Amino acid sequence: MNREPRVISAASNPLLKELRRLAHEPGAYRKLGRVWLEGDHLARALCARGGRAALAVITQTLWQTHGALRELAAQADEVVLIDAALMAGISSLESPPPMGFVIDAPSADATLQAGVPTVVLDRLQDAGNVGTILRSAAALGVRQVVAIKGTAALWSPKVLRAGMGAHFALHLVEGVAPEQLDALGVPLVATSSYAEAELHRLSLPQPCAWVFGHEGQGVAPELMQRCGLTVRIPQPGGEESLNVAAAAAICLYESARQRL
Amino acid sequence: MNREPRVISAASNPLLKELRRLAHEPGAYRKLGRVWLEGDHLARALCARGGRAALAVITQTLWQTHGALRELAAQADEVVLIDAALMAGISSLESPPPMGFVIDAPSADATLQAGVPTVVLDRLQDAGNVGTILRSAAALGVRQVVAIKGTAALWSPKVLRAGMGAHFALHLVEGVAPEQLDALGVPLVATSSYAEAELHRLSLPQPCAWVFGHEGQGVAPELMQRCGLTVRIPQPGGEESLNVAAAAAICLYESARQRL
Repeated sequence: MNREPRVISAASNPLLKELRRLAHEPGAYRKLGRVWLEGDHLARALCARGGRAALAVITQTLWQTHGALRELAAQADEVVLIDAALMAGISSLESPPPMGFVIDAPSADATLQAGVPTVVLDRLQDAGNVGTILRSAAALGVRQVVAIKGTAALWSPKVLRAGMGAHFALHLVEGVAPEQLDALGVPLVATSSYAEAELHRLSLPQPCAWVFGHEGQGVAPELMQRCGLTVRIPQPGGEESLNVAAAAAICLYESARQRL
Repeated sequence: MNREPRVISAASNPLLKELRRLAHEPGAYRKLGRVWLEGDHLARALCARGGRAALAVITQTLWQTHGALRELAAQADEVVLIDAALMAGISSLESPPPMGFVIDAPSADATLQAGVPTVVLDRLQDAGNVGTILRSAAALGVRQVVAIKGTAALWSPKVLRAGMGAHFALHLVEGVAPEQLDALGVPLVATSSYAEAELHRLSLPQPCAWVFGHEGQGVAPELMQRCGLTVRIPQPGGEESLNVAAAAAICLYESARQRL
């Protein structure tokens, strides 16, 4: 913290208006250049990975009475105090958390890292699925997640919530076109129920880039053509299908298992 | 189909009121004794597993023009035709599907099957997680899913939607108390980040009952004590955590992999 906390008491304050927009519109961070990290869990996850918050917003009561959260908030460059009603007005949640961080939005022209374990998301629509995959990726040793154009916004409030802090452990690149993936320099691997090779019988390339596709349509044909390998997840229960985030957890686990 | 389709044109019709309640209240099926399967995907999944529908509800337009859906609807004992506006009034979805089935609610006093691959859900709250786990379980060869009291209602619309038909491939038992689990006759296995045994280094008991716990609190201590084995999912990415449905997919995959 560089200076004394600032108190904001008007709901019409431009900062609060901006935060409300960031909390409600999935893609607002792209226009406003800032990301709202709602709740102390995300704030702690940022700090644990050495991230820097431009701003902390916290209720006056908590700032005065809750030592641990005050200490957490004070790690931001600047602290803003508001009352609980204004705080509740920012959130889209039924139980609004009493604090949050504002960080600078990640650069829109981030470049792909070559040669690292990667996940490619091809137009996934469901924010819960995307966040869950980020979380699995971070836990299972993936270093980079690349979102093809049309994928749910990675830094939206819902994806952040489902990601539970995984965002800060990963190199994230959005808005990528399939033809840019050559720069990854690792084989692309996709799942397909038509593939002959079964996931558990195969020696997977290390590192590789796992490609997971749209909930309804799967991986787009033009991207599938770029995949050097397709594998089938064994399904001894019959021709049931798997949720894409469940399939991703399985593939990333199998990659990790073979590495370990 | 036993008789000619019946046309309902009043929104106040008791059947439509009942369907609205079933579509909106997660636990209504327990009181009303019937389950509303919304959309042709669930209806097909039921038929594919040999299930029987008491009633099909379909829009008049579709019944007249869509051969495949007419044929599907005609598999129910009785068919009710309504107009699209009434159909939309039933659903809680933004894009209401143009048909659905009504089935008898599963018996509330179903008994546990002994000696089969099982999943135990300990007070999971999120309907999406529960449905996703049912789907993974069905695909990966689990035969039975047991919900401890306090778990999200298995036959609620959201769980059905996320389950994508897995319900009809599994023996489902709800409202179970931990002390009843002895009747499973297989070892209970839980994940724990404190466990010494790593999932991928261990020879898992076959069959077993995997226990997955509450999103925030994990498996209850009294139930954890009943688990003969606890395992840790390797997390080479650091101390990140996994979503419970992702963890379940990994554990059930590893069980299947060792069996295959």
